[in-house]
Formats: sequence, structure tokens, C-alpha cells
Amino acid sequence: MVKLQQNVDAIRISTRIEALACCSSTSIGVTRLPFSVESTAAERLVEEWMKAAGMSVRKDGLNNIIGRYEGKDSTAPVLMIGSHLDSVIEAGKYDGILGVITGIEVVQTLRDNGIVLDHPIEVVGFCDEEGVRFHSTFLGSKAIAGTFTAEDLQRADEQGITIAEALKGIGIADPYAYKNSSRTPEELLAYLELHIEQGPVLEKENEPVGVVSGIAGATRFSFEIIGKPGHAGTVPVAIRQDALLGACDLISYIEKIAFKNEPLVATVGKLTVSPGASNVIPGLVTGTLDIRDLNVERKQKAIDAIFSESERIAKARGLQIKFEQVMEADPVYCNEEMIKLIEESISERSGSVITLVSGAGHDAMAMADVTNVAMIFVRCKDGLSHHPDEFVTVEDMGAGAEILYSTVIKIATKQ
Amino acid sequence: MVKLQQNVDAIRISTRIEALACCSSTSIGVTRLPFSVESTAAERLVEEWMKAAGMSVRKDGLNNIIGRYEGKDSTAPVLMIGSHLDSVIEAGKYDGILGVITGIEVVQTLRDNGIVLDHPIEVVGFCDEEGVRFHSTFLGSKAIAGTFTAEDLQRADEQGITIAEALKGIGIADPYAYKNSSRTPEELLAYLELHIEQGPVLEKENEPVGVVSGIAGATRFSFEIIGKPGHAGTVPVAIRQDALLGACDLISYIEKIAFKNEPLVATVGKLTVSPGASNVIPGLVTGTLDIRDLNVERKQKAIDAIFSESERIAKARGLQIKFEQVMEADPVYCNEEMIKLIEESISERSGSVITLVSGAGHDAMAMADVTNVAMIFVRCKDGLSHHPDEFVTVEDMGAGAEILYSTVIKIATKQ
Repeated sequence: MVKLQQNVDAIRISTRIEALACCSSTSIGVTRLPFSVESTAAERLVEEWMKAAGMSVRKDGLNNIIGRYEGKDSTAPVLMIGSHLDSVIEAGKYDGILGVITGIEVVQTLRDNGIVLDHPIEVVGFCDEEGVRFHSTFLGSKAIAGTFTAEDLQRADEQGITIAEALKGIGIADPYAYKNSSRTPEELLAYLELHIEQGPVLEKENEPVGVVSGIAGATRFSFEIIGKPGHAGTVPVAIRQDALLGACDLISYIEKIAFKNEPLVATVGKLTVSPGASNVIPGLVTGTLDIRDLNVERKQKAIDAIFSESERIAKARGLQIKFEQVMEADPVYCNEEMIKLIEESISERSGSVITLVSGAGHDAMAMADVTNVAMIFVRCKDGLSHHPDEFVTVEDMGAGAEILYSTVIKIATKQ
Repeated sequence: MVKLQQNVDAIRISTRIEALACCSSTSIGVTRLPFSVESTAAERLVEEWMKAAGMSVRKDGLNNIIGRYEGKDSTAPVLMIGSHLDSVIEAGKYDGILGVITGIEVVQTLRDNGIVLDHPIEVVGFCDEEGVRFHSTFLGSKAIAGTFTAEDLQRADEQGITIAEALKGIGIADPYAYKNSSRTPEELLAYLELHIEQGPVLEKENEPVGVVSGIAGATRFSFEIIGKPGHAGTVPVAIRQDALLGACDLISYIEKIAFKNEPLVATVGKLTVSPGASNVIPGLVTGTLDIRDLNVERKQKAIDAIFSESERIAKARGLQIKFEQVMEADPVYCNEEMIKLIEESISERSGSVITLVSGAGHDAMAMADVTNVAMIFVRCKDGLSHHPDEFVTVEDMGAGAEILYSTVIKIATKQ
């Protein structure tokens, strides 16, 4: 990789990431749920840094924090960049927050370099993407995309506190203020998000930055395999109806189907075996199947194949196998032109463009309802995230911010 | 099956089974732990029936109940028949108790027919075979075989009550009285046990009674498969180290090995998957492997094959697989001459001899330490046991008792 002149300040990014990591309710990892004391502390830091970068800062009705860097034409549609400020329980330091801090860094660099772009830039820190507290993801970006609803206000956390009550607790007395958060397609030029990959592909390819082609759609099932329990010593293997053996056939087949349809991914993450005694043949197995692909048709074909194989297994082994769909999320395709501009920015630096499908959901998914979206992924160690050991090197944060900087200039410059 | 004249009274057996089933601490199924109120109630009934059959009755120092039917030569070695009086939690009505009741029925029939055999017959109701209360099996038969130890007295139940204390509670003040329970090889001619099959073979073969060639040896392992957890959406299938997929390979292979080595049986009965979330790739799987065979060499070869396959799987999938042996029980071979006499008895009735390996442990296993043993199995519905729905027809109980009756006469008659 040829190193070009670095515009952004990677050390500043790293320092800010460390400072924000202190805004946590747990000492192990980062725990920053929305509308909490530690969240408010993080927002104050972000606000200071936005102001220092020359932005005007406001909070919208759902407590998204938005810094605006004016363009040559203040009435031109806004290029929004950013990510989320919240975390899961005992999370890492980079998931979400890196997109906000590199966004601020881009504006700071533009300002330091005396660059004013055609379009205004807004850096956003979404209040909640992970959905840990209220069991619903993308709260902040949904409000801006206009898909947050009055019913969402009544979602309660484990203490029974609703979103409306939590907002009141941080000084937003009118819960319907969220309505003022929403933006129209005309107001927005596009949404561009930088995020850690949360997967191992960039590490394996030895590249710090990649471009995202889209966010995979996901379908989730729970399944149940009913066999016949029996004494482990007295029932000959030939006449057993062992639910676990049926599960093994099924899970092995699911892997085969995933291999055949890469980059589709399929995972059996939960599995319980009953009655679960060392001397009893398993009579019941329950589990979950999570299957993701950017290509909806290919995903459906894979699901159909799994269903028909499960029927074959059930027949062959004298079992009952039932699937129940519990979740369905449509895929989101990143904007082709923006992809091209990101690829150009990467090529200018290193010459090697890695294109990835995001298997995890991101705010860009919700923002796609109101504007064109694109994403830049930054390499993280071992593909690990949602874990205290989540790690991104200072060099990679700098490389990501640099690509974001070039791309923002390209997008926000009128052709 | 040609029906011969029936000597025993099947209805009486069935009535007594029902009466004993009422001696239970739970209303669902039969729960009769040793040294309990319901156990004492059952022993009183058994004692009455033994006396009615012309037996002298005593209890030994570990609360085994023993009825003796004198032979022509009262100094000749004793043929002991019987089984256990205790049950698991919410068990069926037949497991164990059928061997005691048919034993009493055999003596009653001998007496009713005016038959005195060369050898004395003793019908035994062992105090504890299942081992539920003190987590150690064959307590009663071990005491008679002389393998019960002073340390066993200190085994405690979940309330912290030791066997010594429990014995005191039912009036056996001297816990060391168990020493008087033990019999020498010279005192015993043999031990013969009738028991429900607890498996589905006789039902499948459409025969009420079968002869047991031996009790399989059992080896039990716990295993651990260590992979790498990861996000279900972001880690490509090709580079996953999914512990559950490794487990599926292993479990499927274990089934293959069992098939190849029938009547060996192998069972993975317990399996836990961690972290166990629908969107996380399994990083850790733990489980148990229970493997049983009458043929020790074949069992060891199967275990070796499983070990070497697990090494192959671990290598291929980037996993660690560790086995730890947690139990080893030697097989017990039934006495060839007694097997022949049981076969003769069956042939006289039906002509079709089914030979089975017992995959479950029985008192005969402990008794084999002191004398020759043999077993007769009686068909049970769906092979089900240790369950309230455990069921044996009146006809089958009668058929079993009839075979036991003929066999006892053959064994206890001097050649």
C-alpha cells in the first residue's frame, strides 16, 4: 500500500475514542445505553468536539446529536455522515462511535484545510442503534428517516421505563418532539457511514479499509425436532428416533448449502437437547437458524432447500421437524455512484479495493428509507466485536478517516 | 406361540404390582426411594406375600428383605431370585418390583403344587438398585455380594442424611449390621433375575420373554469442543470455527460406528451450545458420550475410532476436541448353563428364543461378584421405562413368571 499524504489526525481520533470509552456504566468493556448518564456524558464530549471543528450543534427530538458544517450553498441537500453513540452490554470501544469521531475528524480537517464544499455536511451521532435497552434497533436513524412511530414511544426497558419516560428523564418533555427529527428525501443528498467491519475479511485480505456493496437481508427461524426419548443402553441404534442425530444431519446440510451459496451465511446459534441426560436418547431438540444474504432470491432458494432436506431427514429418521419464522429483514443495496467514489478514494491510496457485504445491520439500513446510502468498513482485530477485546489500530482508524475524507469531498462537490 | 398349561397366577401378580404402585411419594408415577415411609409400606406387603407363599422372612442389615423356601437339603447352596424394591422419581410400576413379585409367585406355585426342590430358594427384594437417593447404584445387591463398604455408609442424600443415618431412621441402629448381609460363594448356587427389558427388542420380535446373554459394559465420557464465537452475519462460512458443526460431524460419526458394531450402542445424550444466541456462531459445545457393549474389545476399538475421527475433525475445522472419561463399568456375562436352562424353558413354551444383551445395569451385575448370574427379560410397551407410562401386559407378566418357574425348577434340581 502506497502511503499518500495523511490529511486527518489519527492520534486525535484514537484519543477521542479512549475518552468516550470512559463513558460507560461497566468497568469491563463499554456499556452505554441510550438516555443514560454515561450517554449524556458522551454527548457532551461529542458536542465540544463538533463545536471545535467549526460545526453548529443541535439535538433533535429523539436526542440524536447533529453537527452542521455549512456548504457553499446552504440550501443545497445535506450530506449526512456518522453512526451511533450507544453500545451493547460490555461492548468494545469502536462499534458505532468510530463513525461519529471520524465524521468529526473529516469536518475538522476540511476546516483546517480551508475547504468549504458545495453541499452542507452534517455529522450525526444516533441515540440508539443496538436496541439493547428497548429491544428495538435503529431508534435514532428511524426518527430521522421518518419511520419511528408513536407506538415506539411506548416501548419499555426492563425496569418498565418507556422511551417517552426516558426522554423526559433527560429533559425532552414533549415525547412527540421526535416528529421534528424526520428529514425529507429533498433535504438530504445522501447518508455515508464508516463502521468497523465486525468480521474477519479485511484482516484476511490484509487491507485496512473496504467498501460495502449492501447490507444483507436476514431471515430467522426457530425449529423443533421431535423424536423419541429412550434408554441409552437398551434401544438398539437401528430403531432409535434420536432427535439430536436429526439435528446433526440438518445442521451439516445447512453448512453445505451456505458453502454452495457464498457469500450467503447461515448459522445455528442456539441448540437445546432434551431431556439432556447422559443415559437418555435425546427426544427433543430446539434451535435457531439465522440466514443472511444480499441476494433475496438466492436466500429463498437456500431456505427452500433446507426445508425440503428437513422433510427428507424427518422421514428417514422417524422424526417431526417444524420451522417457525421469527424475523425477516429486507436487504439494503448501497448506492452505485457512491460505491464508485469510495472505490476511487481507496484506489488513490492503496490500489486494492475489497468489496464486502455487511452481514450485520447498521443505521444505513434505516436511513435507506429516506436517502441513498453507502458504507466504508474498517478492519478490526480477529473480526471481533460486541466484546471488550474489540480492537482497531490507530493506523487503520486513520486510513478509514482518510478514505471518508476523500469520499466526502467527492460526494459533496457538485459535478 | 403354543400355550402350555399355566402354573402361575398372572392376575395375582398384576394385583400385587398395582398394590405396590400405591406405595409412592408422588401421585404421578411411582417414587419409592430407599429407607422411606413408602418403602417401608411396600416391604410390609412383600413380607405378607412371602409368608403367604410359605417362606420364612427376614431383613438383613442393609434392609434387604429375604424370603426363604426350604429345599430338600437345607444345607445345600441357595438359588437366589428377585430384584429391587426401589424406583427412580416418577417411575413406572414394573421396573425391579416385577422380579420380586414373580419370584414370590414362583415359590407360591411350587408350594401350591407340593414341590420341594433340592436347593433352598431365597426371594430377595433389594433395598436400592437405582441409586437415586445416594447417587450410588446396587446398594442392596452389593451388600449381599460383599462389596458394600463402610465408606458407602457415609454417602449422603440431598438433605445431607447419610445411609447410616437413614438406616437408623428405620430402626437399624448399628450401621455396621450391613456386614452380616454378605454371602459367600459357597452359600450360593446362583442368582437369577427377571426384569422388564426396558428396550423395544422383544416387542419388535413379538415375543413376551427373552434370555439375556450378558450386561453390557459401559464407558462414559464428557467432551468439550472449543471453536471461536463470532457474529452470525459477518464471518464468512469458509473461515468459521463453529464448535457446533464440529459436534455434528462427531455425533454423526459416532452413530456410524455404532451401526457398524451392533449390538454396541452409543449415545450423545447431553449437549450444550455456548454462547447460545441466534446471531452468534457457537464457540463452545460440551456433551456426553455413553457407549456400551458386552464385547469389551469391540467397544475399545469403537472408542479408538471415535478418538481418531475427533482428531481429524478438530484439525479440519480448527477446533480443539477433548474427551474425559467419567465412568467405566465392566460387562457381566451370564452363566452359560443357566442360559441354556432358560432357553429350554422358553422353547418348551414357544419355540422362539430371543437372546438379548442388557444395555442397562441390574442387580445381577453386582451379584456376579459372588455367584453365577442369569437374567430373564419381559417385554414392555414401546421399550419405555423410568416413566409413569411404563407398561407390561398381564399375559406377559404371566409368561415371564412361567419361564422363571420352569427355570427355577431346572436350576434347583440336582443333576
